[in-house]
Amino acid sequence: MSDRLVGIKRQTALKELHGWAEVLERDAIRKTYHFPDFAAAWGFMNQVALLAERQQHHPEWFNDLGRVEVILYTRSADGVTQADVDFAHRLDQMAPPDNR
Amino acid sequence: MSDRLVGIKRQTALKELHGWAEVLERDAIRKTYHFPDFAAAWGFMNQVALLAERQQHHPEWFNDLGRVEVILYTRSADGVTQADVDFAHRLDQMAPPDNR
Repeated sequence: MSDRLVGIKRQTALKELHGWAEVLERDAIRKTYHFPDFAAAWGFMNQVALLAERQQHHPEWFNDLGRVEVILYTRSADGVTQADVDFAHRLDQMAPPDNR
Repeated sequence: MSDRLVGIKRQTALKELHGWAEVLERDAIRKTYHFPDFAAAWGFMNQVALLAERQQHHPEWFNDLGRVEVILYTRSADGVTQADVDFAHRLDQMAPPDNR
């Protein structure tokens, strides 16, 4: 189980992410991805689903046609850990360049 | 394009659905499905995704591990139509018996 990211480590880790923001009402990070249509969004979500299952690290996420909103946090730590930051980087790598 | 369901037709159609409720702040219907884990939820969502793409009738939906919240309405009608009721019935057929 990893520890919650705090202080300077947290600041540095979050600063290296693109388009991710802290959720206001809880210790989590979020990003909205945009795709041309549902099929493209679903292709991305399927890639993420496989990664999530392999790593047993699952997002909360919402989909509406080409829009995918992802919320990440670590359940065992009840907050944002390095695992979430790493997962976020992987998602950005999977997404089309204009979503990075 | 189908028309919004209103009046007695709407009442009758919604009464025949199981576990679906009207969304308060907009003309849409919603249901939450529960699965043992993410893999089971994702299996269901993939079935729904294919149906949605085939029918070009897409839900708004949220997933958190085994929980899947589905919102249905018809974009072209800006409200609930018979197409949503039919789609809801199909989802219930795809879901495990304890979600019907």
